[in-house]
Amino acid sequence: MEKIGFIGLGIMGLPMAKNLIKAGYSLTIFDINTKAIETLMKEKVEVAESPKRVAECSDIVITMLPDSPEVKLVVFGPGGVIEGISSEMLFIDMSTIAPATSREVYKALKEKGVESLDAPVSGGEVGAIEATLSIMVGGLEDAFDRALPIFNILGKNIVLIGKSGAGQMAKVCNQMIVGITIQAVAEAMILAKKAGVDVSKVRKALLGGFAQSKILELHGKRIIDQNYKPGFTIKLHRKDMNIALETGRDLLVPLSTTAMVASNMDALLSIGSGDMDHSALGFLMEKLANTN
Amino acid sequence: MEKIGFIGLGIMGLPMAKNLIKAGYSLTIFDINTKAIETLMKEKVEVAESPKRVAECSDIVITMLPDSPEVKLVVFGPGGVIEGISSEMLFIDMSTIAPATSREVYKALKEKGVESLDAPVSGGEVGAIEATLSIMVGGLEDAFDRALPIFNILGKNIVLIGKSGAGQMAKVCNQMIVGITIQAVAEAMILAKKAGVDVSKVRKALLGGFAQSKILELHGKRIIDQNYKPGFTIKLHRKDMNIALETGRDLLVPLSTTAMVASNMDALLSIGSGDMDHSALGFLMEKLANTN
Repeated sequence: MEKIGFIGLGIMGLPMAKNLIKAGYSLTIFDINTKAIETLMKEKVEVAESPKRVAECSDIVITMLPDSPEVKLVVFGPGGVIEGISSEMLFIDMSTIAPATSREVYKALKEKGVESLDAPVSGGEVGAIEATLSIMVGGLEDAFDRALPIFNILGKNIVLIGKSGAGQMAKVCNQMIVGITIQAVAEAMILAKKAGVDVSKVRKALLGGFAQSKILELHGKRIIDQNYKPGFTIKLHRKDMNIALETGRDLLVPLSTTAMVASNMDALLSIGSGDMDHSALGFLMEKLANTN
Repeated sequence: MEKIGFIGLGIMGLPMAKNLIKAGYSLTIFDINTKAIETLMKEKVEVAESPKRVAECSDIVITMLPDSPEVKLVVFGPGGVIEGISSEMLFIDMSTIAPATSREVYKALKEKGVESLDAPVSGGEVGAIEATLSIMVGGLEDAFDRALPIFNILGKNIVLIGKSGAGQMAKVCNQMIVGITIQAVAEAMILAKKAGVDVSKVRKALLGGFAQSKILELHGKRIIDQNYKPGFTIKLHRKDMNIALETGRDLLVPLSTTAMVASNMDALLSIGSGDMDHSALGFLMEKLANTN
């Protein structure tokens, strides 16, 4: 069984690491908040003093971090992963970051003889705990095959999309579609509500036709119930929309609706609602239409 | 068996009328294009010279017309339905029009002792031919019960949403969500395509998660295959987005994303692509991103 290093034990990383331990893997971990991690995970893990040390102790290093700058810092910063790697190591970044950053990391590690995968996930905290995450992977097939036993412990719907960065691109697409569809449902539901129509009946009728979506089913219900407890926060989704917009800017793909929804998320941030569930696009609509 | 009048035998109305005839109903029909209708439907129907005459000959009058002005003309215009009605008649408008117009028609007929229903459909020409239309209904429950045997011949997913205009509101919601979701899928797919990623794999991976929708499944495939043969045209969908925007304007509900997608549809109309399928929002994205 390969020795695993795990860097970043937040809301997502911690339950993922626990699932790996439960499956029998021995873990060396690192997080800036060492104390909290140690307490939580007790003596089942080795706690390293740096990402470099994690790399030195592990066959496979997994990172689960908030954003591109944190991934760069952990890989390239002082005491970073790149200082501790040896050529047989595999690096798997499961954070959701810019595809361009994934490719940059891939290239730098490849120069040292180390393969890496970008493997962002979808499914949130519940998916991480219940090991039902969708995992979208970019990288070489050999590396994917080597990582598969680990992915199978963490998730269910595991797809190799293409070469380095392709996993992140799929995740970007996912976040764009999810965000814009929530906005679509929010506009429709609040319009119907202000027209005095029974919104639950509208949702039910629409679920039987072309307007059907997981979002109409789940977030549509949240919007109707005004249940904006996360789930997945506006703050984090706004970060992901930014990755989409930056990628669009790099590639010269004009993303008008993505930009519009990102700006609605900014409106929510500006009224202090960044920690609400992303279905709070409905909450903003209620404010704008004065129906709440 | 009640005698049915049917006004408006276009792409949708004609197959619907045929299904009613097949079920044994006797029909009196009217369309501005009388000749074409007579030829198509042969001697199985009575052809009336005016909407008024249709109303005089029928227990239930159904209209299936392009837009609000046509419905107003047929009901209120010279030789209109309202001149031929008697108090036991039921009026069913199955066109997709503004909820406000539906309520206006309802009120005017109600004053003459006639109940009406707004009953717009979803499912397109195929749904009309195969009698699998979704039917969203607004009006009184008694009137709905009286119409149900007819609806059951025309469609499958039949829901009484609420009082007059509620069926149209549900249809407005449907068209908003469908239009915006197509745009979401288009932005995501074209971004991935320009990034050089296998878009089919992205679609397949995303269908397993929160981004799942009928639109990603059907229109996503159309966009990937660049198959923009209608289906449901940009021209007609643009009309429906206008109903949404006018309703939003009336009720003071700001519909930013709906407006954005409507304006993308205008861009398609301006390059002469109004008769393409509404998934041509992907075709526009390809042009904007220079990937086609």
